[in-house]
Amino acid sequence: MAADRGGVVVLAGGFGGSRMTHGLALALPDPGALTAIVNTGDDLELHGLTVCPDLDTVMYTLSGWANEANGWGVREETWSAAEMLGRYGAPTWFSLGDRDLATHILRTAALRAGERLTTVTARLAGALGIAAHLVPMSDDPVRTELRTDGEWLAFQDYFVRRHHAVEVDAVRHAGVEAARPAPEALAAIAGARAIVLAPSNPFVSIGTILAVPGIADAIRRAGVPTIAVSPIVGGAAVRGPADRMFRSLAGSEPSAAAVVAHYRRTWPGLIGTFVIDTLDAADAPAIAADGPERIVVTGTLLHGAEERRRLGAEILALAGDA
Amino acid sequence: MAADRGGVVVLAGGFGGSRMTHGLALALPDPGALTAIVNTGDDLELHGLTVCPDLDTVMYTLSGWANEANGWGVREETWSAAEMLGRYGAPTWFSLGDRDLATHILRTAALRAGERLTTVTARLAGALGIAAHLVPMSDDPVRTELRTDGEWLAFQDYFVRRHHAVEVDAVRHAGVEAARPAPEALAAIAGARAIVLAPSNPFVSIGTILAVPGIADAIRRAGVPTIAVSPIVGGAAVRGPADRMFRSLAGSEPSAAAVVAHYRRTWPGLIGTFVIDTLDAADAPAIAADGPERIVVTGTLLHGAEERRRLGAEILALAGDA
Repeated sequence: MAADRGGVVVLAGGFGGSRMTHGLALALPDPGALTAIVNTGDDLELHGLTVCPDLDTVMYTLSGWANEANGWGVREETWSAAEMLGRYGAPTWFSLGDRDLATHILRTAALRAGERLTTVTARLAGALGIAAHLVPMSDDPVRTELRTDGEWLAFQDYFVRRHHAVEVDAVRHAGVEAARPAPEALAAIAGARAIVLAPSNPFVSIGTILAVPGIADAIRRAGVPTIAVSPIVGGAAVRGPADRMFRSLAGSEPSAAAVVAHYRRTWPGLIGTFVIDTLDAADAPAIAADGPERIVVTGTLLHGAEERRRLGAEILALAGDA
Repeated sequence: MAADRGGVVVLAGGFGGSRMTHGLALALPDPGALTAIVNTGDDLELHGLTVCPDLDTVMYTLSGWANEANGWGVREETWSAAEMLGRYGAPTWFSLGDRDLATHILRTAALRAGERLTTVTARLAGALGIAAHLVPMSDDPVRTELRTDGEWLAFQDYFVRRHHAVEVDAVRHAGVEAARPAPEALAAIAGARAIVLAPSNPFVSIGTILAVPGIADAIRRAGVPTIAVSPIVGGAAVRGPADRMFRSLAGSEPSAAAVVAHYRRTWPGLIGTFVIDTLDAADAPAIAADGPERIVVTGTLLHGAEERRRLGAEILALAGDA
């Protein structure tokens, strides 16, 4: 029997991923049809707790708990535990707010009790009232590492502790060869009528998810409209180091064209539609001339709920939804 | 070579134990000479975290972080994580404040990394500036359980969740037969010039510590002045269920005399001096007539630092210190 094919899948990192996921959830009549497959390569162990920044950013954004001004963390947050952790001499470079800690505490307890990351993620998201399905790319640990000046850094060591201010000359995803996709991720892809690659970092968010053995193949096998949104707008990353990574990892100036070229080169034929921002409209003909994919120009900034819903609806329309 | 014999040891539970320990620390010229051997039978696992309420009450009291108005927890506390834990559907009957959580998180991480409870306790207390030595009675888990209506309850289930409002007809300390005293506890006893039993609950605080195989024997072997302070004042417990436990467990009306009789019966010859409150002065002659111990009448309430220091100094004087 064929899969239901009623679902929508989005591959998501943290900042852009959470906002794109939010837009799709807002645009869908039934947000329960949406599955976000979320990067876990940024995860870290801190004070014995398993912290999953991208999963949590998506969860807080969809539940309305995100601190939208910061772009990370929880609103109405307090910092008492962090202050006390500092008094105890624990490292404080990665800020864990008090509300946020509740998430990490319960997740860690569940993982230690043998629960899968997918299961505890679904339980936490459900408790916060989220109808969409939040699925980690894998229940197995994958840890993205970045090489800078010959030294391999853990992702958050690079991203938070060093404020992604150092140049990255290589990326690897430790553990990814042995990681199995979360079964729920594969099932969602098999049951999707559309697959969206959020405007997340192609090297350390989308690239990490697609590096999990079996996920890219499952997307190809699904054979449904696959739509990627460029995270580079007007030559710069909306947030984070993606623009600098295009220079140091792909050897190209950051641009929508560079994003498309990178996806074409790294996962040939995977993506059927590229969405680039109106700021990059002038580049669209050249990008289109270089490959068979459809190039769509629209506003891709996702600051507020209305912008998010509108882009979500446009993408669903591109996938054949009215 | 004989032990140094310069130390003072106090056996302590939470509320009365922390205040007595504080008084001795304030009265000693060098609080580093003080070792508190603390009950861990009240410990619990909550959300995967190891919580040690008595150790923490002593630690917060000695460091000035105690919420003295409550008698438990930390001052300047916030409750954001607890609020979020509740949203996630986690049990909330045992309140964990945000600052307090930092303690449990670091302790749990250390224990999982293989550190002894004694070691991590010393590290946390040291970080809060405590000169006295805080030592759990054992590095091995002991869990006090109370029987009520034929059902055995974990200590905090009885004490916090049921507000110690049910009648206890038996007490046991699960794991205590196999528990070894913390080596630092035995060393402190061997090096003590005086041993104090704080005005903590004789059944579920002092009794738990003395139930750890080897601790009572070590106290006898030390052969130094051993002084117990009654937790029953004017026929009632200063705090908690000790008075009701005298009725249901010892079959006697709660009184200073009942405390002395219980200690005489349960650990004969262990204690040389009993300190009872001025409210119970009229009972002193009858108590003294019943046994060889010295009975000392003085103020034993320990609300403020000055009351604590004064009782600490009086006890040190009773032990032969000027």
